[in-house]
Amino acid sequence: MTLQKDKVIKWVRFTPPQVLAIGFFLTIIIGAVLLMLPISTTKPLSWIDALFTAASATTVTGLAVVDTGTQFTVFGQTVIMGLIQIGGLGFMTFAVLIVMILGKKIGLKERMLVQEALNQPTIGGVIGLVKVLFLFSISIELIAALILSIRLVPQYGWSSGLFASLFHAISAFNNAGFSLWPDNLMSYVGDPTVNLVITFLFITGGIGFTVLFDVMKNRRFKTFSLHTKLMLTGTLMLNAIAMLTVFILEYSNPGTLGHLHIVDKLWASYFQAVTPRTAGFNSLDFGSMREGTIVFTLLLMFIGAGSASTASGIKLTTFIVILTSVIAYLRGKKETVIFRRSIKYPIIIKALAVSVTSLFIVFLGIFALTITEQAPFLQIVFETFSAFGTVGLTMGLTPELTTAGKCIIIVIMFIGRIGPLTFVFSFAKTEQSNIRYPDGEVFTG
Amino acid sequence: MTLQKDKVIKWVRFTPPQVLAIGFFLTIIIGAVLLMLPISTTKPLSWIDALFTAASATTVTGLAVVDTGTQFTVFGQTVIMGLIQIGGLGFMTFAVLIVMILGKKIGLKERMLVQEALNQPTIGGVIGLVKVLFLFSISIELIAALILSIRLVPQYGWSSGLFASLFHAISAFNNAGFSLWPDNLMSYVGDPTVNLVITFLFITGGIGFTVLFDVMKNRRFKTFSLHTKLMLTGTLMLNAIAMLTVFILEYSNPGTLGHLHIVDKLWASYFQAVTPRTAGFNSLDFGSMREGTIVFTLLLMFIGAGSASTASGIKLTTFIVILTSVIAYLRGKKETVIFRRSIKYPIIIKALAVSVTSLFIVFLGIFALTITEQAPFLQIVFETFSAFGTVGLTMGLTPELTTAGKCIIIVIMFIGRIGPLTFVFSFAKTEQSNIRYPDGEVFTG
Repeated sequence: MTLQKDKVIKWVRFTPPQVLAIGFFLTIIIGAVLLMLPISTTKPLSWIDALFTAASATTVTGLAVVDTGTQFTVFGQTVIMGLIQIGGLGFMTFAVLIVMILGKKIGLKERMLVQEALNQPTIGGVIGLVKVLFLFSISIELIAALILSIRLVPQYGWSSGLFASLFHAISAFNNAGFSLWPDNLMSYVGDPTVNLVITFLFITGGIGFTVLFDVMKNRRFKTFSLHTKLMLTGTLMLNAIAMLTVFILEYSNPGTLGHLHIVDKLWASYFQAVTPRTAGFNSLDFGSMREGTIVFTLLLMFIGAGSASTASGIKLTTFIVILTSVIAYLRGKKETVIFRRSIKYPIIIKALAVSVTSLFIVFLGIFALTITEQAPFLQIVFETFSAFGTVGLTMGLTPELTTAGKCIIIVIMFIGRIGPLTFVFSFAKTEQSNIRYPDGEVFTG
Repeated sequence: MTLQKDKVIKWVRFTPPQVLAIGFFLTIIIGAVLLMLPISTTKPLSWIDALFTAASATTVTGLAVVDTGTQFTVFGQTVIMGLIQIGGLGFMTFAVLIVMILGKKIGLKERMLVQEALNQPTIGGVIGLVKVLFLFSISIELIAALILSIRLVPQYGWSSGLFASLFHAISAFNNAGFSLWPDNLMSYVGDPTVNLVITFLFITGGIGFTVLFDVMKNRRFKTFSLHTKLMLTGTLMLNAIAMLTVFILEYSNPGTLGHLHIVDKLWASYFQAVTPRTAGFNSLDFGSMREGTIVFTLLLMFIGAGSASTASGIKLTTFIVILTSVIAYLRGKKETVIFRRSIKYPIIIKALAVSVTSLFIVFLGIFALTITEQAPFLQIVFETFSAFGTVGLTMGLTPELTTAGKCIIIVIMFIGRIGPLTFVFSFAKTEQSNIRYPDGEVFTG
């Protein structure tokens, strides 16, 4: 029997990427089962729509095949909120918390899992990071819910107002983009409180915990790590360029900014500029936007936000590393240098692997959806980029998806959330080979 | 006055990339002026259409805003043929030939230009390569024209038949995709001679002169250079995958393969599989193809064919280097190894620079065209990829382009032909800096 037991133990030994992938998968399945319960829904829900909603919540995407506000009871909406919270902070964070609450010791293997989940360079201090991360997130969400309730309670009454405030605060901080209202946040397009609170939440959630803690600890820009400097400058520059682009392209569009007052035009341009990276709320109708803005939004959704954050996409730092190493090459420089720091080959090749794998997954998704769906090509492209970046914006295709289309989007959201590398690593057998080969000459370009 | 003269000489000293870019530009301008001559056209031609046609011919793309067969006289068509020949072999080849015919010595600077134009690693033997390249191309084109004339003379008579044979042989070898017939080669969809001769020509022209001469010199696969091995295996595998994909996706499509006999289905699948890399002839109507096939064709057009060839795109070797280095990274390997040769960092970073710059140019093109054109998004995307890869396939958008749209396509064809790196290098001031910076830590992905 011992042989049998060894075999089982050997089989059970998963690599960290495999544990993350399986953990996420199980969270989605449990969520779908909960959403199928009668107490969760106001009307019958098919298994595929339950699975889709659970996947969309756990991957903090926000694409909705059914209207969250009317299809689900408060219990159902609470299940969705729970899935968003787990998906946003990562199920490893919750696993570690549960183990800590049960008073159990956290072994080396679990610490390696957390290191992988939070994309940390070293294993030291990861458990401390989990505690701080959890407390920090909960307190931000509660404070934001309180501020939102000042706005929503007068409109919806105490219980619905408070619930809506909490729901949207959790949905925003975790960059989920789920809303209880069918027109998302379009009725608050010019509302300063909602605009500021919601965007503050998803930018903070999306910029990454390592950046947040670095800023809180060191306070002065000069003392920040290179990663933090890149994230802060990159976020600022990209948001400014995006806001200007949306403002110019949509200024006279009757379907979006055309009829708004100048101040509301600015709020809406700001909101639609930052939401694609990867929050997914909208205060304008993306279905009526000009194609130029849509194409620009594709790029923003693909870039995403920060590493070890509640956001996805290839990550802003990946985009910056690729951009700066290409510019350095084009200027004939031997090295890539940013903020007087040289970026070494392993970081560049990882950024390359992330981007190429991501492009390949998006390309396959578009290719598959053009076969399964009868929809305009731009809607298919937009839906695929939105699913991969776990953004949740749509041009209206989600409710029209075929069952096959829903399955494809679920897979893309799943890969988008755990990250293309973690996904591939959970399959790839890594082999070290010590044979050295002579250099090969290949003409490219 | 001497100061003035020095200034002029200093101003005149261009870098090799600048000479290539300017040379191409002047060839296009001269071509456009020739096409505006009354003896070139059967009916008046606007300056933008003359510029577009000249640019399309010189960049061996084949996108046509006017019907080549009816708009131009034989003189005009001969001008187009000349532009295709110069564009295909590179105007440097012709410049060197003219200098040789005039009996002048070819200085170091010109040799460096040829080395840059033909993407050769060293300067040795480039002039010899030019002579062989020219003679080889002309003889292949003449032989192919003779074979085609066996098919076309009975149908069009001696003079038109011979002229059409020569025109299509030159257009095919140089991967231009220009045709004298409004339906391109659709009336020869099942014709073995036309299918074989045309595809042989554009595959040979597209695979690259360094590969052709290596194969002719060394004969046995084992003795080929790494570059040649990659090009041959890559071309074979990609063509096989592409043919299978087109065959499966279009098999029952009434607009393309649906009504054809099985043998013609195979010919048409083969033809449509190889033409996107970057010939541009078509024996099926791309406007009636399924979106899945169109999306797959985008990838083929972007990849293109061989370095130092009559084709464009990012080049097959660039695609292979990126793919293999990402796979090596995902399998945890320290080095990228292909055919027992290790691919060093400088080659990978150049491949990265080519791909990222190309993606950026295609993205900007799509973004600009969605603003200037009122056309379905997929047609715009297809046109942009086709222009960048100097393929020449279209879903019907080219004749409908606005003047602004025509200018955008001209710029994209130009950059696509001289290559994104040469284009950027003709602007970028390369600076060497000997300062070494400490390594920076950035979390990506």
